[in-house]
Amino acid sequence: MRFLLYRVTGSHMKALRLEGIEKIQLIDIQPPVCDSTETLLKVTYCSVCRTDAKMWSQGQRDLVLPRVLGHEICGHKPNNPAENFVVWPAKTCNQCHYCKSGAENLCSNIQVIGFHIDGGFAQYIKVPKRSLIKIPPTVPPEIACMTELLSSAINATEQVNLQKNQTVLIFGGGPAGLMLGLACKYFGAHPFIVEKNSAKLNQVTPFCKKANIYLSDTPAGNFDVAINAAPDPSALIEGISKLNPGGKYCLFSGFTKNTPIPSELLNEVHYRQLTLIGAYGSTKRQMKLALKIIETNTQTLRLLIDKIIRLENVPLVLPKILLGQSLKYVVDLTE
Amino acid sequence: MRFLLYRVTGSHMKALRLEGIEKIQLIDIQPPVCDSTETLLKVTYCSVCRTDAKMWSQGQRDLVLPRVLGHEICGHKPNNPAENFVVWPAKTCNQCHYCKSGAENLCSNIQVIGFHIDGGFAQYIKVPKRSLIKIPPTVPPEIACMTELLSSAINATEQVNLQKNQTVLIFGGGPAGLMLGLACKYFGAHPFIVEKNSAKLNQVTPFCKKANIYLSDTPAGNFDVAINAAPDPSALIEGISKLNPGGKYCLFSGFTKNTPIPSELLNEVHYRQLTLIGAYGSTKRQMKLALKIIETNTQTLRLLIDKIIRLENVPLVLPKILLGQSLKYVVDLTE
Repeated sequence: MRFLLYRVTGSHMKALRLEGIEKIQLIDIQPPVCDSTETLLKVTYCSVCRTDAKMWSQGQRDLVLPRVLGHEICGHKPNNPAENFVVWPAKTCNQCHYCKSGAENLCSNIQVIGFHIDGGFAQYIKVPKRSLIKIPPTVPPEIACMTELLSSAINATEQVNLQKNQTVLIFGGGPAGLMLGLACKYFGAHPFIVEKNSAKLNQVTPFCKKANIYLSDTPAGNFDVAINAAPDPSALIEGISKLNPGGKYCLFSGFTKNTPIPSELLNEVHYRQLTLIGAYGSTKRQMKLALKIIETNTQTLRLLIDKIIRLENVPLVLPKILLGQSLKYVVDLTE
Repeated sequence: MRFLLYRVTGSHMKALRLEGIEKIQLIDIQPPVCDSTETLLKVTYCSVCRTDAKMWSQGQRDLVLPRVLGHEICGHKPNNPAENFVVWPAKTCNQCHYCKSGAENLCSNIQVIGFHIDGGFAQYIKVPKRSLIKIPPTVPPEIACMTELLSSAINATEQVNLQKNQTVLIFGGGPAGLMLGLACKYFGAHPFIVEKNSAKLNQVTPFCKKANIYLSDTPAGNFDVAINAAPDPSALIEGISKLNPGGKYCLFSGFTKNTPIPSELLNEVHYRQLTLIGAYGSTKRQMKLALKIIETNTQTLRLLIDKIIRLENVPLVLPKILLGQSLKYVVDLTE
């Protein structure tokens, strides 16, 4: 007898699946079937990441099609709606050097939820039991789903070994840039967000005021650390010129492809002993820390939500996200 | 009365001065005059660095013309030939954040000997007293002058925080690459030098055998660390592809100018959380450590000397050094 754990028997579910470039559709499928290492979650909220929009428009290194997208997930077990969880969005081997040393986001056999395996733009999702992180009752689930984004920002600040009182130049005032600002504040550093678009600048001013983050369209002075939350390589060129000797630049966003970087820029890295360091994803420890930070900043984080939308409206917002015209869209799957 | 410390009165000295691109000449000038913070040294040996050849052919960021070149210097006080010194080749402010934190090679007001101020291709040189490092009597001065090169290699390994048993891919089997290999061995790491030129490969085989360093024309496997001791950006592209996730690449040599680097390479840094980190020069502490390593490797390091030459022959060897056809030329100034 095959015992199907947590199978929502006899029912179907709605899911939003990417079938190919710019081909995304609402489908009606069987809920997933868990093995003994997995748990079925009823998704409550799943926020839309810029990477979801990028996957829709051009694909992504780790994307395997067709795919139910969504990796900023909040949900509960079907039989216990009172206990909510966020999901560390990956399945790992737990055996490799990276898993054993607390760098499981580099696992040699990683399967990222919403990339390699199906994600949270669905009524139900199966997740590894060890990926579940319990949400304190004081954090509303529509806020909690943004934990993954903040944890990836924490990863960036940890990759550069951010120290108290360091000055940090952040390129891009979108949700990722704002989360980077929040992570910097947590570590006692001084974030300075640069946003060149004046409409966006106005849009994010309330968040930055409330979080006490400096915001401008022009960086002033020199910095210990720079981080890009924007895909334009000009953020690299400008950032390197603004770094103090021995400073660090975190490559947090991928850069637009086929954009040559002048070799002189790397010579600056050589001469001034700068560091360029990549950040991608986050670890479970960082997710837990992010949730802790979110718990004390729920009112600030509410300002990050542009709109709460229905699953069927996700395709409509993807182009807006790519144009950088929005803050966070959160998909409501509670119904 | 103006008291001229250590002035070699009434005499002139020979010096080799770079006047402009590809214009270098042997001149007869007054020996330098020291202030109270400086010491006059009779130069005994000064080895020729690839950077000297580069300055002659195309200039360099820190070069101020006209300039007596030479920064790999060994000498003694005129009145005490028995006590030999190597020179940490810079004058620093000793007051800035970098000087105070043991990163004086990043001093905001640094003046590098042989770059901003006159160097060791001369019979006499004035150096800051605090730049003098005493050579143990067991180290021959023609070997000791290579301390600066080894210390810059140590700086590279320290910039990447090299750990015991890590594997290190070194691009370029010239003197800098071999010194990097020696520094890796000191830290208990496993260096693998790649040299594409078969004549050079044969030339450096004795050194690598004696130092127990792996040498090949093709890198095999993946590595924890990569370092370029060659100016071709292909060493960056190949090195990044050979790094393990979370691996580190040290930019030890400057890259050929006007060579565009594809942005995809930086996306690799992003996705696999790699680090690119610059190394330039070294600190006094690293010079002392280099001298300690040299003390136990004098027989190996003798294999690094291509030829001991006279000052007037330096212009003849510069083109050979640029072509990568030579090991170390050491200038004998003892006469």
